[in-house]
Amino acid sequence: MTARYGKVGSMIVHQDDPFNAETPPAALAAGDRTPADRFYVRSHGPVPEIAPGAWRLRVEGLVGRPLELSLEELRRLPRREVVATLQCAGARRAALMAVRDIEGEAPWGPGAAGTAVWGGVALADVLARAGVSPGAEHVGFAGADTSPEADPPQPFGGSIPLEKALREEVLLAFEMNGEPLPPVHGAPVRALVPGYIGARSVKWLERVEVRAEPWDGYFQAVAYRLLAPDEQPGPGRGFPLGETALIADILAPADGAVPAGEVELRGHAFAGGERFVVRVDVSTDGGRRWTAAELLADQGRWAWRRWRATVALAPGEHELAVRAWDSAGATQPEDPATVWNPKGYANTAWGRIVVRVTS
Amino acid sequence: MTARYGKVGSMIVHQDDPFNAETPPAALAAGDRTPADRFYVRSHGPVPEIAPGAWRLRVEGLVGRPLELSLEELRRLPRREVVATLQCAGARRAALMAVRDIEGEAPWGPGAAGTAVWGGVALADVLARAGVSPGAEHVGFAGADTSPEADPPQPFGGSIPLEKALREEVLLAFEMNGEPLPPVHGAPVRALVPGYIGARSVKWLERVEVRAEPWDGYFQAVAYRLLAPDEQPGPGRGFPLGETALIADILAPADGAVPAGEVELRGHAFAGGERFVVRVDVSTDGGRRWTAAELLADQGRWAWRRWRATVALAPGEHELAVRAWDSAGATQPEDPATVWNPKGYANTAWGRIVVRVTS
Repeated sequence: MTARYGKVGSMIVHQDDPFNAETPPAALAAGDRTPADRFYVRSHGPVPEIAPGAWRLRVEGLVGRPLELSLEELRRLPRREVVATLQCAGARRAALMAVRDIEGEAPWGPGAAGTAVWGGVALADVLARAGVSPGAEHVGFAGADTSPEADPPQPFGGSIPLEKALREEVLLAFEMNGEPLPPVHGAPVRALVPGYIGARSVKWLERVEVRAEPWDGYFQAVAYRLLAPDEQPGPGRGFPLGETALIADILAPADGAVPAGEVELRGHAFAGGERFVVRVDVSTDGGRRWTAAELLADQGRWAWRRWRATVALAPGEHELAVRAWDSAGATQPEDPATVWNPKGYANTAWGRIVVRVTS
Repeated sequence: MTARYGKVGSMIVHQDDPFNAETPPAALAAGDRTPADRFYVRSHGPVPEIAPGAWRLRVEGLVGRPLELSLEELRRLPRREVVATLQCAGARRAALMAVRDIEGEAPWGPGAAGTAVWGGVALADVLARAGVSPGAEHVGFAGADTSPEADPPQPFGGSIPLEKALREEVLLAFEMNGEPLPPVHGAPVRALVPGYIGARSVKWLERVEVRAEPWDGYFQAVAYRLLAPDEQPGPGRGFPLGETALIADILAPADGAVPAGEVELRGHAFAGGERFVVRVDVSTDGGRRWTAAELLADQGRWAWRRWRATVALAPGEHELAVRAWDSAGATQPEDPATVWNPKGYANTAWGRIVVRVTS
């Protein structure tokens, strides 16, 4: 089965089946929010067909009262909304692949990220109904999709610390930008974990498992782990990605030719985790001198921050760079070579584009 | 008045009055905890003399019931303990000053940080007694020390977000490593804010103020702010430092001559904020190749992580480097030049030392 998707023509498609596609940079740069039909899709298997009336959410594990909730029952809990950026752990991998090849992984660019307003209920409210038992430390999510990529094949899944799961920003989401969640984005209900890698916002959610230990399934124990440059993937190797870290990208103009003179640069920066972006700098000389960009709308801690800057460029080739600073005073590493890793995750290096300025 | 201090001879003293001194690298490398008499001291004025029996803590601002607590009353609240690293915002400034001079600031090295087990009561318990009013967003601390460095002269002070203030790790501390807090470290009571710059762990605490806005005193509105390279200090300029960000240092051997062969490197890494260290790498070729170091005792999320690594060094001069990775998959910028700022705060660049290996 191939994923059904509205406007494949407006996306950069990395794979048809399972469907994997990202938003083109110009479309990302166009607004604070990403339309659902242009929002990146990272799938590990076919989109499961789920009749909303037949859907049930099982809440089990270290709970006092295991639950089985229909969509109608879930919707009776207080409705919550959060503006949040989701970012794939493999976003910006293409820049790592330019350093040294990474086999079997898609060359995601900055568009493996998107921002939407998500509507749903707080996971905390569901957990309060189930009653979290002593010894609980993690909350796992399992989807209805069986992934043949996993060894052995299994539903997509992962967990987050209980401490995070109880925070108000973590949702069981059934709406995206004011509309029902589309099938390709996890209908009828997905987990929504702001500040974490997209892989923890499990789609087609059908099971919440309160646990003493982190998720031991393939997608957390083997995949989505950051390895040392010379480390081989394998169970327990490296460390599991969770919160995302500070990135910034120049989204417009695109790599390529631009006319000489004043050029407006546009892009975004995303702090990840619990942090927020406090400054964005751009450089037209490869990072020797920096100029502060103008920060655009503040959509809150869980969303990227768009920015713009105007620079004067003489004819010739220029490497433009961007870096951000987060609320802890951290900034980004300079060079993708220093963060290269065998699976190509967590490229936190400066964003760079090359433009050829015509006279 | 000059600060009284036990073993000035075992410290690197940057200033006698006010007393400013840091722990020598070898002493830092020696243990997971830092003895109180070797723990760095950052003072902005003289050490105030406070008779414990006369001390009162005022809790005021946006609270339902303003309080005035004696030490005895404070001690009746449940006792809490936390192992936490405090790190001065100016730690590691010396490496920034090597890039470009910074006038009027001390050349702190890695020893402007220390780890202790702190005993006291939870700030949250005190705030619960006072009752936090609607509209409260920040909790400010004011000390008894008047600093002539401030413009105008005023008590040292600062605030943290209410969300952080309510967390169990934030203490009003009256013990350090199992002994009463020494005068130079804030006796009888100091704030203790794990994961934040040392400046928020206000010493000689005498006032807690629940506020709608961040602290507007000199030490947060003007000082302890991260400026862009070309920005002048001034009220509201730059952004206020709060959480600290990931750093790592090589503490032993010291810069200098070492015999050829297998050399054991020792140091520490500290993630800051809410994060923890997941990997530390060392390089003997300036950062082209990296080897994972062995992580030593895990003292919990609020404390640094010591590490060791054995490297083989041929005769000649070598630049050794260390970098850490945090739980969000972030690592450090390579070069202090890229993080240089006019006040020399938040040097998050790789730790480096130069050794001359003798044959």
